[in-house]
Amino acid sequence: MTAPGWYRHSPRPGRWCEVHRFALIGAGFIGGVHSANLAAHPGVEFSLVYDVDPNRAGTLAERHHSRATDDLDAVFDSAAIDAVLIASSTDSHAEHLRRAADAGIAVLCEKPIDLDLDRAADVVAHANARGVLAMVDFNRRFDRDYAELRRVVASGEVGDVVLIQMTTRGPALSPLDYIAVSGGQMRDQTVRFFDLARWICGLDPEAVFATGSVMTDPRLADHGDVDTSVVVLRLPGGGLVHIDSVRQIGYGYDERIEVLGSSGMVEAQRRRSGAVKRYLSGGVVEDGLPAGWFERVSASYRGALDHFVDALDGRGGIGPNLSEALKAQAIAEAAALSLTSGDMVDVNYTEPGAIRPLR
Amino acid sequence: MTAPGWYRHSPRPGRWCEVHRFALIGAGFIGGVHSANLAAHPGVEFSLVYDVDPNRAGTLAERHHSRATDDLDAVFDSAAIDAVLIASSTDSHAEHLRRAADAGIAVLCEKPIDLDLDRAADVVAHANARGVLAMVDFNRRFDRDYAELRRVVASGEVGDVVLIQMTTRGPALSPLDYIAVSGGQMRDQTVRFFDLARWICGLDPEAVFATGSVMTDPRLADHGDVDTSVVVLRLPGGGLVHIDSVRQIGYGYDERIEVLGSSGMVEAQRRRSGAVKRYLSGGVVEDGLPAGWFERVSASYRGALDHFVDALDGRGGIGPNLSEALKAQAIAEAAALSLTSGDMVDVNYTEPGAIRPLR
Amino acid sequence: MTAPGWYRHSPRPGRWCEVHRFALIGAGFIGGVHSANLAAHPGVEFSLVYDVDPNRAGTLAERHHSRATDDLDAVFDSAAIDAVLIASSTDSHAEHLRRAADAGIAVLCEKPIDLDLDRAADVVAHANARGVLAMVDFNRRFDRDYAELRRVVASGEVGDVVLIQMTTRGPALSPLDYIAVSGGQMRDQTVRFFDLARWICGLDPEAVFATGSVMTDPRLADHGDVDTSVVVLRLPGGGLVHIDSVRQIGYGYDERIEVLGSSGMVEAQRRRSGAVKRYLSGGVVEDGLPAGWFERVSASYRGALDHFVDALDGRGGIGPNLSEALKAQAIAEAAALSLTSGDMVDVNYTEPGAIRPLR
Amino acid sequence: MTAPGWYRHSPRPGRWCEVHRFALIGAGFIGGVHSANLAAHPGVEFSLVYDVDPNRAGTLAERHHSRATDDLDAVFDSAAIDAVLIASSTDSHAEHLRRAADAGIAVLCEKPIDLDLDRAADVVAHANARGVLAMVDFNRRFDRDYAELRRVVASGEVGDVVLIQMTTRGPALSPLDYIAVSGGQMRDQTVRFFDLARWICGLDPEAVFATGSVMTDPRLADHGDVDTSVVVLRLPGGGLVHIDSVRQIGYGYDERIEVLGSSGMVEAQRRRSGAVKRYLSGGVVEDGLPAGWFERVSASYRGALDHFVDALDGRGGIGPNLSEALKAQAIAEAAALSLTSGDMVDVNYTEPGAIRPLR
Repeated sequence: MTAPGWYRHSPRPGRWCEVHRFALIGAGFIGGVHSANLAAHPGVEFSLVYDVDPNRAGTLAERHHSRATDDLDAVFDSAAIDAVLIASSTDSHAEHLRRAADAGIAVLCEKPIDLDLDRAADVVAHANARGVLAMVDFNRRFDRDYAELRRVVASGEVGDVVLIQMTTRGPALSPLDYIAVSGGQMRDQTVRFFDLARWICGLDPEAVFATGSVMTDPRLADHGDVDTSVVVLRLPGGGLVHIDSVRQIGYGYDERIEVLGSSGMVEAQRRRSGAVKRYLSGGVVEDGLPAGWFERVSASYRGALDHFVDALDGRGGIGPNLSEALKAQAIAEAAALSLTSGDMVDVNYTEPGAIRPLR
Repeated sequence: MTAPGWYRHSPRPGRWCEVHRFALIGAGFIGGVHSANLAAHPGVEFSLVYDVDPNRAGTLAERHHSRATDDLDAVFDSAAIDAVLIASSTDSHAEHLRRAADAGIAVLCEKPIDLDLDRAADVVAHANARGVLAMVDFNRRFDRDYAELRRVVASGEVGDVVLIQMTTRGPALSPLDYIAVSGGQMRDQTVRFFDLARWICGLDPEAVFATGSVMTDPRLADHGDVDTSVVVLRLPGGGLVHIDSVRQIGYGYDERIEVLGSSGMVEAQRRRSGAVKRYLSGGVVEDGLPAGWFERVSASYRGALDHFVDALDGRGGIGPNLSEALKAQAIAEAAALSLTSGDMVDVNYTEPGAIRPLR
Repeated sequence: MTAPGWYRHSPRPGRWCEVHRFALIGAGFIGGVHSANLAAHPGVEFSLVYDVDPNRAGTLAERHHSRATDDLDAVFDSAAIDAVLIASSTDSHAEHLRRAADAGIAVLCEKPIDLDLDRAADVVAHANARGVLAMVDFNRRFDRDYAELRRVVASGEVGDVVLIQMTTRGPALSPLDYIAVSGGQMRDQTVRFFDLARWICGLDPEAVFATGSVMTDPRLADHGDVDTSVVVLRLPGGGLVHIDSVRQIGYGYDERIEVLGSSGMVEAQRRRSGAVKRYLSGGVVEDGLPAGWFERVSASYRGALDHFVDALDGRGGIGPNLSEALKAQAIAEAAALSLTSGDMVDVNYTEPGAIRPLR
Repeated sequence: MTAPGWYRHSPRPGRWCEVHRFALIGAGFIGGVHSANLAAHPGVEFSLVYDVDPNRAGTLAERHHSRATDDLDAVFDSAAIDAVLIASSTDSHAEHLRRAADAGIAVLCEKPIDLDLDRAADVVAHANARGVLAMVDFNRRFDRDYAELRRVVASGEVGDVVLIQMTTRGPALSPLDYIAVSGGQMRDQTVRFFDLARWICGLDPEAVFATGSVMTDPRLADHGDVDTSVVVLRLPGGGLVHIDSVRQIGYGYDERIEVLGSSGMVEAQRRRSGAVKRYLSGGVVEDGLPAGWFERVSASYRGALDHFVDALDGRGGIGPNLSEALKAQAIAEAAALSLTSGDMVDVNYTEPGAIRPLR
């Protein structure tokens, strides 16, 4: 593993970073993750926490030596705040994004921009017109191994992309009330890998096929959702991508990507929790996979914040910007439609909202 | 690796096997592989070699201390021959199978039974009615790791089958004139994994989706064929299988199977050519994959022959019988149709010939 | 990897830790590593930095928002300071340790206590009599994998300890002027694994054999030192330990431990820098080993600090205490003697200073 | 794995080998292993089996379609026999070797030549003077991975040899009555790795240190033997070798070699019985090590025979010749002396019998 970003103040030679004043919007579960990272980052002054529930904001602010507010005007006050991190409920992302754009405040926004793709496209156009620095938190791009895999592909070492295998599997179902408003497996879980697929090969998938099943809790079907699915993407030039997404497996948090090129293959293997092996009479037992979401991806969250702060400092470009995030959502929309219709579906990047599931 | 079967005459306690008189039909490339195995097997008397080209038969017979013939009546003479191994050209398999069945001679037959599924179904019905011992050489079932993977699945250790990932990739295109009569990637390459999928999970896939591309030699398209494809199978109960098949990769012979169950996962990893690692300043270099087909699967061919001889001895049942092989071909037929139509296609096991590609 | 300690303020349930006022003694290279960790730790107020060179102290203090001092009385003022971290030059450790003990201030001390074992034994006796909380920074005990390996051994899962294999290899020679005052490979490098060996098996080695060579820079011989050595320890009951120590290898930072027990074996594998594999025609290339010391062990340094702060909070016992550190040094002393004499040497734990190299 | 030699009659282009008439001396356990290989080898006519017990010879001859004899003159009749394979009891090796040399018959001899090194040196000198083709069955040289490791070392890819780690561990104690006449762990088990060490680095070790314990059956001590030992060899130039040898472990047959060079490292990893992994909630379970001796090294026995037959055909040189085998025994002799004396011992290659254990 590479050392996460905030060890840059080690004795190794390194530049100082500036300190940026951040406001956090949303003090729920994921807001808690972000707040720990904001508090620890040497380039961040963690100025404000806002939540619709003042108690939640207060608790989080106290824990991380920040300040709670119930006044959104304070959050979007560009004299006091340099950047907002939007981690509120999904249906409020677009509105907060619009206010930040209007105030000229940089934005790091949790995905999705909005589940309604027309609304999402509108706010992206608005923010892009304002020229605000904005990034969507598709943090897997900052996983050390995925970044290395992309570097190998871009170097040409394995030739042209022929076929990509992706696996994304979580240890347990999210709560049903979360799933009910998540937009379904394609828009909630697989969408991260739609972004990764585009980012790794530098191509926009043209068509999508998806098929899925409910293998765990039958109540998922009540929400038109699945927990187990296979998606196939067709790339320009004939390359293929397949992604299997499973919401609940019995052996930890499992992600894996493999890119077959015309002259070789590169694989980001499933990550392990450690490197201990026991050799016993019945077989060899290795350390298993990370038990949960936090163990597996917390470093990616820190990496995304690092990258965003670097962009604020003018070092390197922004990560997944709003337009890119919208493309990933357009693929998810087509996949969701394919899942219900059973047909291969063309992706509509220009008017992503024009593709709609039949039910 | 376990020791292949014909080291059973080692000092380890073991039963003696009887000796069975074999005739080999077909002295081409694959006939050569079989003849070396027949010559080495302690339970086989390698009596005859037949080929439409007497020179080829003669060469092979001389090499392996067998006898060449140009008389098919001698091959199907049950007073002199106990078993025939059919390794002739695909279009003659059905006829040879029928003659063996009529003569009451046991058969080990190369796949496919016949590319015309009506014709294949007819000869299977005929042979089954005669009650002859007959096995189709889907030899991957005799790969040590695939057999172990199936054992783990059957034991229930990973729970019910949720999702199967399969990869089958060869190092180089077969000659175009072979490809032209092969029936295409689904019927020639992927069909082995359709058989494996059924065998591993004990379920008959209900529907198939396939999509593919030509990424190597454009002349493949002239034969309506592809070299790179993804197939998705739906199993009864909602389980999913996906298979990627690639005819030509740059890094050796690559096969891999992973079965996700409701409580765990089991994987037959890609096989390596050895276990040497070099730790260098630029990275760690391990032994690569087997360079070619022969290195990867020659043990499976020996395993299949072992299994067949065991069945002749009355030890254990037959491997993939004719009806099972016909099912794998029915899946391939539906996959080939999906590949051209772009739609998911139901598998028709009862009248496999009734599904036909549109072109 | 487990999340390092200061993500305990994540949304996962966790106790608050108290905040302890630390003074750092020594602002050299290793002091810089410690200061970054002190600055980032939520349970630490990084109050003071002392160095014999005020400029160095000032630079480090400014970088980490601490305060520099040239007054040792301020460092050992128990009204203002709860703990000192001793990272000064080796010959001053004992004196600083004595002053902290006298002031009743907790100590985290870099190894060794003192290269003169009589002097080291004296100050250990003194500090133990004062009852001050003191820990020596044998930080490998806080490596995730070594701790897990020890847990497996202690659980009895592999039976009684029969044989331990240890490998400790660095990527490059330390500067010669450092090596000249380091006490030699046994006291500087291998000593960490003497501590680990004792800690893992819970036994005090009885006798030591060591042999070594100079394979890199011949000037090492001028200091009576080696860069490549093999040490064999005999444990009570007949168990054996062997350790190979190499100061300079060409492929990164390489550590590995394997414990053979009477019923199985457990191994902490060499750590990799990532989990990316490239499958190429010439072989499979994996991510290599960590390039240097910092990449490999920085997490262990943080883990040691975490553990020490936990002990200050009264949560869990201290790590390697002074008496344990003295035992590891006693083994190193005997190994250094064996290296020059060529004989197996008994370890003298009660009067470690009584064993002296002949030259 | 590479295909073992006697699949050379595959359809792959290959030369024919001549057929050589072999006599096997010794029809015990190891004679049984050899006889299966002799019977299966296409370049061998398995002409005769001799044993002091005619019943044993008869049983083996019948099983492998050979002929038993109780007449040693028939064995050493060069008009009828081209090569003898000596697998009789250790104390008769030298005499059989001498007779073969006198008759001008090629010899493949089980190790050791003789446990009395004076006697061994005499017969080696005698056979060398006669110029007979003679090879000692240190078959690990024909293990695919060890041969590849040596090739890498010889290529210079990892630089000059600095340190070699060797592990040789068996799953279970041999019977005590075998151990009693085996010459002890150094001469019986570790000697194979003394030969490998010399062969891999092309250097003759100068001095040896060994220490060992009895950790399993205390009766071993009655024979002056150990079951667990560590040996350290010093090479010319300062390189070091350490070897741990364990007679009984709980997890299969474990061998592993690692060569550290001045610019990299190369490792022949412990061999596995297969490549299946199970990912479960409690960890990842891989296929274990080969269960026993036969599974692990039977391919090496076949490889040694292949190599010997190639030498008979004039293709390639002989494997470990008598002089090399004597050197490996000289190292074992010195190691056995060190084991009892506790001192490092110089190896005496010119008069190996001059080194004798004190008891």
